[in-house]
Parts: sequence; structure tokens; C-alpha cells
Amino acid sequence: MFKTLSTKGQATRDRIRDAALARFRRDGFDATTMRDVAEAADVALGAAYHYFEGKDAIVLAYYERVQTEHAQRVAAALPEARTLRARLGVVMHTKLDILEPDRKLMGALLRYTGTPEHPLSFLGEGTRRLRDESVALFSQAVEGEAMPPDVRALAPTALWALHMGILLYYLYDRSPQQARTRVLTDRSLDVVVRLFTIAKLPIFRPLRRRVAAMLEEAGLGAATHKEAA
Amino acid sequence: MFKTLSTKGQATRDRIRDAALARFRRDGFDATTMRDVAEAADVALGAAYHYFEGKDAIVLAYYERVQTEHAQRVAAALPEARTLRARLGVVMHTKLDILEPDRKLMGALLRYTGTPEHPLSFLGEGTRRLRDESVALFSQAVEGEAMPPDVRALAPTALWALHMGILLYYLYDRSPQQARTRVLTDRSLDVVVRLFTIAKLPIFRPLRRRVAAMLEEAGLGAATHKEAA
Repeated sequence: MFKTLSTKGQATRDRIRDAALARFRRDGFDATTMRDVAEAADVALGAAYHYFEGKDAIVLAYYERVQTEHAQRVAAALPEARTLRARLGVVMHTKLDILEPDRKLMGALLRYTGTPEHPLSFLGEGTRRLRDESVALFSQAVEGEAMPPDVRALAPTALWALHMGILLYYLYDRSPQQARTRVLTDRSLDVVVRLFTIAKLPIFRPLRRRVAAMLEEAGLGAATHKEAA
Repeated sequence: MFKTLSTKGQATRDRIRDAALARFRRDGFDATTMRDVAEAADVALGAAYHYFEGKDAIVLAYYERVQTEHAQRVAAALPEARTLRARLGVVMHTKLDILEPDRKLMGALLRYTGTPEHPLSFLGEGTRRLRDESVALFSQAVEGEAMPPDVRALAPTALWALHMGILLYYLYDRSPQQARTRVLTDRSLDVVVRLFTIAKLPIFRPLRRRVAAMLEEAGLGAATHKEAA
């Protein structure tokens, strides 16, 4: 997928990707052509195609950039967060910060998720590595917490699923600066932290076992993730 | 939105809708034109446009048909189901039965959900009535169960959300006859019924109150639904 590029080549590639992003934001994803992208990046059309096979390849580079930036922001802020609740807040809110200018674009890209085999589907094989990296940030957030092994195994994927739900809400949020999404994020994390405490109780062990078995059977469990990694 | 039609007019409208569906299934949603639809229904192009402004209007009629059929199948099977678990199984599995030939089409239509203001978005204002009717089927399934009022108020929407998640899994399920989705549905309903029992316990009242307040604040609660109805 990725060609080995010189530093200068990498810089050109990033410039084309960022110029494309700016056009997607300004003119919309569908209205923007590779010719527009080349023009915006001030490169020849052939050069744009040298770095990216087409708009899909640019979108994948954009997914990569979002994930890299998320990992960096989490790495910078996590050491300062002293509680589980604070750490979860860091992972969720930095993601919202990064996607804030791209809510409309994310909506346009959601279309691919209806086609399981499409490489840009948010839930498909083509984005599995990025998804695993995203789940891993939630693993970092729960690291060091006292939790039964089965809760620890399921928590990161469950938190990632919550984060996907919150992003969907974000897309539909018309409140100023999407304040409602921020509130929903905080309130839901308050509930999650409480649920983690409750789920630890031994009386819930049979139910936890049942949920874990169900997710494994469905290919959504922690072991499936490990297998695929 | 709906013109008042004679019985014959209604029959022609249904015929065009069903012919369109057959084409969407055979040739794909994007590849099918209004001209193809008219041809398949054996009506003039002008007649097709008389009944439907375009493909979007046909899709909305399809959403209507799915909801009507779901309500009918649930009405037929629910009286035979003696337990909460059995009633929930009826609502979930009849929906899967209805959508079985249209998994690919549902995937194609998912695109609109990325555009909140699009009338065909699964989560937008344009489909709110259909969504409320779908939630109401889950209300019927929990009717008569002993539940605290706050659990009763939240349960139908929570079950509807689970059903949307299961439909997404269905779209991605490559197992023969999507057997894995059927198993996931049954297992998740087993867990849900158990969770209802646990959630009733008085010690969970504060957490239930917190969840209800969070959903109301986010415009996702039971009161919001009533307001909109």
C-alpha cells in the first residue's frame, strides 16, 4: 500500500493530502476531483496520481493521519490524567477535537460503511489495523486499573463502540460548538466508570462470562482481536 | 407527501414500488434509473413520475412497506409468545426475515445516514415517524412485564438501538444464511432479559436515574419521543 518515500517525497505526499482535505472541507467530498486536488497542492495532475491512486487513497491517508494525531494527543495528555474517568475523558475528547472540522466529511465517508468489502468502510477489513490502534488507546486508558481479567479484555472494545456511537451523535449535533456531544460524552463516561465498578462484583461473573462468550462467537470478542493482530 | 389515490392508483403505485425493489436487488440501487423502474413495472416513464418524484420517493415507500410488514408480522406472532424473551425474539427475528433479501440495498441506503438533513437518513427527521413506530413494536414486547417506570420508559428505545446494531452486524455477516446474526440476536436477548431483571433492583435506582437524565439531556430519552409524537 505504502511506497517508500524520501523525506521530500513524504512532505509532498502530506501536502497533497492536506490540500485535498482543505478542498473536501470547502467544496465537499463529491465535488472535489483529483484535478482540484493537484491544483490546490500546486503539483501536476500526474504528480498527484504518483502519490495517490485516487481520492480513496487520499481518504485512507486521512484516516491514518487522524489515528496518528489521536495517538499523539493521547500520549501527551494521558500522563497528566490521574483517574480512570479523566483518562477516558482524554481519549474521547481529543478524538472529538480532531474531527471537529471534519464532521461533514465523516458523514460523506460513512457511505462506504454500507459496503463491507470497501477498503474505506469504518467497519471493514481495510480499516482493521486502524481500528485495532484506536481500541489500543482505550486499552491504555484502562491500564493499571484493578479489574477482573474478563472485564479488562472486553473494556477497550466496548469503549471503542461507545466512541463510535458518540461520533454518530456528533454528526447529528446542531448545538453551538456541538456542546451537547461534549456533555453526552462526559455523562456517559460517568456512567461507564460506575458500571465498571459494578461489573467487577462477583455476582456478575456469570453474566460477564455469557457476554464474553456471545462476543467471541460473533467474532467481536477480545480473542478475535488478538488473532487478527 | 402522500397523494390520495384510488384503489387502482394505489395498486399501480405498489406495483411500481415493488418493480423498483426487484431492480434494485438485481442491478443495484445506483445502476437502476427511473426509466428502468417504469420499464420493469410496465408503465410509461411519465406514469412512474406521477406516482413517485424519483428514486428517493420510492425508497421512502420501501421504508414504509418494511415498517408496515414488520408491524403485521409482530401483531400475528406476538400473542403466541408467552415470555418476554419470546416476545423480544419475535420482534427481532421478524425484522431480520423481512430485510433478508435486502441486506445489500440497506447497505447502499446507509449512505444517507451520513447526511443528517437527508429525508432518507435512518436517523434523521424525515424518518422519525417510522422510527417511532419501530420503537413502539418494542414497547408492545415489554408490555405487561413488571418493571419500574423508568426502566419501562427506556427499554423500547434501548431495544431499538440494539436492533440497529444487530442490523449493522447483519450487513457484515458472511456466514451461510447469516446464521451468526441469528445466534447473536438470541444470545443478546438472553443477556437483555437478564439485565432487565438486574436493573429492577433498588440499588440500581441512582444509576438508572443518571442514565435517564443523560438521555433526556441528549434528546434521546423517552420524553423526547413523546414530545415528538
